[in-house]
Amino acid sequence: MNRSIIARLEKIVGRDGVLTSPEDLAVYGYDGTFEDHRPNLVVLPRSTEQVSQILSLAAEENIPIVTRGMGSGLAAASVPFYGEMVLTTTRMNRILEIDTVNASTHVEAGVVTADLQAAVEKLGLFYPPDPSSIKHSTIGGNIACNAGGPRCLKYGVTGDYVLGLTLVLADGRILRTGNQCIKDVVGYDLKALFTGSEGTLGVITEALLRLTARPKFARTALAEFSSLEEASHTVNAILLAGIVPAALELMDETAVACVEESLHLGLPLDVEAILLIETDGSDDETVWREIEAAARICRDNGARQVSVARDEAERASLWQARRSVSPALARKAPNKLGEDITVPRSAIPEAVRGLKAISAKYGLPIVIFGHAGDGNLHPNILFDKREPEQWEKVEQMVGEEFALALQLGGTLSGEHGVGALKRPYLQQALGPVSTEVQKRIKAALDPFYILNRGKIFPD
Amino acid sequence: MNRSIIARLEKIVGRDGVLTSPEDLAVYGYDGTFEDHRPNLVVLPRSTEQVSQILSLAAEENIPIVTRGMGSGLAAASVPFYGEMVLTTTRMNRILEIDTVNASTHVEAGVVTADLQAAVEKLGLFYPPDPSSIKHSTIGGNIACNAGGPRCLKYGVTGDYVLGLTLVLADGRILRTGNQCIKDVVGYDLKALFTGSEGTLGVITEALLRLTARPKFARTALAEFSSLEEASHTVNAILLAGIVPAALELMDETAVACVEESLHLGLPLDVEAILLIETDGSDDETVWREIEAAARICRDNGARQVSVARDEAERASLWQARRSVSPALARKAPNKLGEDITVPRSAIPEAVRGLKAISAKYGLPIVIFGHAGDGNLHPNILFDKREPEQWEKVEQMVGEEFALALQLGGTLSGEHGVGALKRPYLQQALGPVSTEVQKRIKAALDPFYILNRGKIFPD
Repeated sequence: MNRSIIARLEKIVGRDGVLTSPEDLAVYGYDGTFEDHRPNLVVLPRSTEQVSQILSLAAEENIPIVTRGMGSGLAAASVPFYGEMVLTTTRMNRILEIDTVNASTHVEAGVVTADLQAAVEKLGLFYPPDPSSIKHSTIGGNIACNAGGPRCLKYGVTGDYVLGLTLVLADGRILRTGNQCIKDVVGYDLKALFTGSEGTLGVITEALLRLTARPKFARTALAEFSSLEEASHTVNAILLAGIVPAALELMDETAVACVEESLHLGLPLDVEAILLIETDGSDDETVWREIEAAARICRDNGARQVSVARDEAERASLWQARRSVSPALARKAPNKLGEDITVPRSAIPEAVRGLKAISAKYGLPIVIFGHAGDGNLHPNILFDKREPEQWEKVEQMVGEEFALALQLGGTLSGEHGVGALKRPYLQQALGPVSTEVQKRIKAALDPFYILNRGKIFPD
Repeated sequence: MNRSIIARLEKIVGRDGVLTSPEDLAVYGYDGTFEDHRPNLVVLPRSTEQVSQILSLAAEENIPIVTRGMGSGLAAASVPFYGEMVLTTTRMNRILEIDTVNASTHVEAGVVTADLQAAVEKLGLFYPPDPSSIKHSTIGGNIACNAGGPRCLKYGVTGDYVLGLTLVLADGRILRTGNQCIKDVVGYDLKALFTGSEGTLGVITEALLRLTARPKFARTALAEFSSLEEASHTVNAILLAGIVPAALELMDETAVACVEESLHLGLPLDVEAILLIETDGSDDETVWREIEAAARICRDNGARQVSVARDEAERASLWQARRSVSPALARKAPNKLGEDITVPRSAIPEAVRGLKAISAKYGLPIVIFGHAGDGNLHPNILFDKREPEQWEKVEQMVGEEFALALQLGGTLSGEHGVGALKRPYLQQALGPVSTEVQKRIKAALDPFYILNRGKIFPD
């Protein structure tokens, strides 16, 4: 980056807001994937106005930009593959307002999601989306990727909580869209268009988010199934009975075995699936009735054992198996690659069996867990990246996972996004017309292709 | 329309699918507003393929098109102001599939919403959106306008149930977007962009809709408040307690007086507001506990009387007041103009007082009712259209209603859309940047401005 551009950026954000040394740049080049590409410069604005000035400059000088929160993405959407300038929102981390009457909050994009949750919960309010990166990912990143999480079955995904956005467009103009109103049908739903657009249409700088009442009570049950089909039917039976659990998590036999082998919790090794079910709400009696009804449905659908936690300690112990999956995987193999394909709920058994067939074909374990209520599965391939032939296999396996999801009427991603990694599969997933329409929208809003090059769309 | 075009259209849809006689055309020129403009031709396709052929022809010959369902809109979005060709979806009225396992349905755009609801309820499923036009409006029209209704507080609006859409673009290409998966973050959310786009970006021909379990029980309460502020605080208190009623309807004193004067139900004439609250769900005990909790909150917040229906007959009688508003208005004045401004919940009292001030200023009654839980108010101006000076006043009053909503942080429309009638106010509501961005998207998808000219955007 030439000196005069650096000087102009320093004038906008101050000297400490522009990083150029190799040591500084090194920490802005990777995310939660295996990708790592150093940016040529990092700029850390403190306000929407500063972002606007940076993008005006970038437009004028035709400087490509990659926007980044805390870099916890799982599709390399925030990795500067071509050494672009990285714009980091982490200094824009103020909670500007929590409106308890209208149950909403106005935040800057760099607020860490768990920090926001803690702040609103103190006031009896609740921000439900709970991606597993919650302790270090930002609201801006969550919105850019339309992040999910286990609670999304009941409460909806990040996009369902976006009432309004402040964005900076590719030409530097500031766009404010949305308002405090939950119902708003004035013009196109721009906030929905920008949510999940992975930094390719604008830079999200502030968000107005809807909150709900904090649920005061939660109850948990763990059900063991000898048959995956029965577990899957149970998921549908629970939902069709009108019970919408706050979590409805599935672990397949490989996940159970993996946790048990590593942690010796006494989990059964002869099940095909475990369901972890949680209900929550503002009335203890109601929450209790719901978990009992869900447990009954499990038994009626072939669960060989169902445990309902009677107190907080038992509840924590039921959750331990699910929470232990990630650490157990880390002990079992040097590396894992977790995908997040989504299929219609009815196709879960076929998806799990198809994933096992892929695992058998390539001789690498795939551990499967996920959010059964919305058909969102996280197959994790275990491998050793130091072995080049294993990495080659992993890449082929991922391609087969995607093909399987599409063949079952599902899609490539329920939570992680397309980023750089899934773009070779985009057209296969969406078809040529949808891909072309999306490219037209991209071109209409970012005609000089400044924002997040090489993401989402195949070249 | 010249003979050769008519012949080509007849070749696509058959002779009975093209209407050209003045008598036939007359019934496709109006909607639920006062606008009435005859189209030059009406075409009634029976399939997505036929719509594609019609739009290819229209693109080739540069023929502007207005898409229309049953014409129940309240913003003149489906009125052919310039004598355009009208494309009516009413012959595409098949429910193609109801998938009970995945709780979804695939329908053609011309299915009447109430017909769909009845069909899925027979199978124990539920399609919640309930615009008041439900018995005659179509799913396609509901999606094009992102229709709401009283139940949307708990269940969300039409867009929350759209899993996928089949559309025909302005150039005749068929776009399929979305799938059975509730979570899908692959590419831009095109279905959200097309939902609420009022026929300006494409012609919706089919929809894949999410269903839920049918609630088996409902309980209703009616609460009387001497003070509008207390009623408004009560709405917030109920929601902040974690109760999300299936309906939370407000009637102000003018609405109560209007109903009572016309129907003599014994309603109190000295209240400032009535709240009608309904809870529903799959478990009677839970639904009962919720309505009792809501009733308690009403009493704690100053309600001078709260009646909870003990059986179905009492429930029907509580609903009678709310259901009687429209017929009562019809008896009171020859014409009414109902708007649907939306404000933050905290601003409801100020909005109601502001509307009363507008009423007093112009000397025409404004009756106010609406969906209090989401701040969506329907102020109805009563007048006589035969008096030109009254109509002139009404137009000024509507402008003042919009200005009031915007000043309170709200917006022009929660349910009806912009159509032709609100477009003069669009830029004031959205600002110049948002308006310009939306125009760019319009131009990207409909470069020759074939689809629904003169709607949404100011000239």
